[in-house]
Amino acid sequence: MRYELYYWPGIQGRGEYIRLALEEAGADYVDVARGERGMSEMMRMMEGHPGTPPFAPPFLKAGKLVIGQTANILLYLGSRHGLAPKTEAGKLWVHQLQLTLADLVLEAHDTHHPLGPTLYYEDQRAPAKRRTDEFWKERVPKYLGYFERVLKSNGGAYVTGRRLTYVDLSLFQIVEGLRYAFPKRMKNFEPEIPDLIGLHRRVVARPNIKAYLSSDRRIAFNEDGIFRHYKELDS
Amino acid sequence: MRYELYYWPGIQGRGEYIRLALEEAGADYVDVARGERGMSEMMRMMEGHPGTPPFAPPFLKAGKLVIGQTANILLYLGSRHGLAPKTEAGKLWVHQLQLTLADLVLEAHDTHHPLGPTLYYEDQRAPAKRRTDEFWKERVPKYLGYFERVLKSNGGAYVTGRRLTYVDLSLFQIVEGLRYAFPKRMKNFEPEIPDLIGLHRRVVARPNIKAYLSSDRRIAFNEDGIFRHYKELDS
Repeated sequence: MRYELYYWPGIQGRGEYIRLALEEAGADYVDVARGERGMSEMMRMMEGHPGTPPFAPPFLKAGKLVIGQTANILLYLGSRHGLAPKTEAGKLWVHQLQLTLADLVLEAHDTHHPLGPTLYYEDQRAPAKRRTDEFWKERVPKYLGYFERVLKSNGGAYVTGRRLTYVDLSLFQIVEGLRYAFPKRMKNFEPEIPDLIGLHRRVVARPNIKAYLSSDRRIAFNEDGIFRHYKELDS
Repeated sequence: MRYELYYWPGIQGRGEYIRLALEEAGADYVDVARGERGMSEMMRMMEGHPGTPPFAPPFLKAGKLVIGQTANILLYLGSRHGLAPKTEAGKLWVHQLQLTLADLVLEAHDTHHPLGPTLYYEDQRAPAKRRTDEFWKERVPKYLGYFERVLKSNGGAYVTGRRLTYVDLSLFQIVEGLRYAFPKRMKNFEPEIPDLIGLHRRVVARPNIKAYLSSDRRIAFNEDGIFRHYKELDS
């Protein structure tokens, strides 16, 4: 079965957590909206499922199933591609971590959009600066400190131990994103999270991920995505 | 088995979505932090699970399992208490809706805390006003319009059809919360969502929910929770 991933074509965004899982798994998939007429196909899907329409991208078509919400898609893929533990307790735990990570992603987004997602960054620069200061003072240490502790208490290789799960791929992406958006702040902070940095290195070295990152399937970070680099927010 | 729910004792907050599910199911549970020495027990649990600590309340102890993240807890409870469909597709769909609803809950919280959760409301009144205006202009119509469409296309009784799921209980709570926080704005908006209002009425009338709402187990809304009434934000 070929999966169909539907997500905004110009950004990594939330779609990237799905792409990383599909790539690591070596799954057969097409990134629909990046193809010709892809955006209109995505819109058609969003309006064309009267009973179970997705609220927003990303969503994944897997046979007859159409699954929305990033963490929900990973819950589904994790079981099918060996990217999650096999026990119910393990599945719930990894999903719980992914949901916590999703909260961090949203807060990273809100650093440049504290007044809401529908206004431009340029219309909220002052509150964005205040929110970013708060994010780095309180929230990043709290979230990444938490993941660092979890990682350490399980041996430091991957979040659940020696086997990679989809959460590890997402943590890699968080480190990437924070490095892109806030290079100075992140450089200062990295000594606090040696195990997360080690995990990042381990993920980069995985053959499928390595191949993906150097392919044109990996979209570059940019200022339309979730992790945006605005110089004035990085000091 | 008696469930142990751990959540901040003075507010409905995110714990309320769990309480509503437990109450509807007639499950045996104790709201630990509301009991004597409950807060210190909650703190002990958060620090005392070295391998799988919850990031934040709410979390649920179910036998040996400790499950965190509201939607994850409902995923677990839904299957065990007939509050979710039995098929995998149905379970994923209801979970997807719950995650979308969780996004709305966070945005409702951000109306009074646009600069982040660690500053006081009093220190962010002006951005709160702007974010609230945006919330009601763009976000509430988008989210509630979506749930209204889903409800209508499935017959208008409950979100998946004739059987109640945990998402219906959560939608009831959203209507309650918006009515409490923004009585004027909500009154103007309700004619747009007749089926959601009908669902709210249907949930209120369920015997277990009715009994719960009039018991002292239901904490009153207040200005420490997610839905807060600030007059200046309601005009």
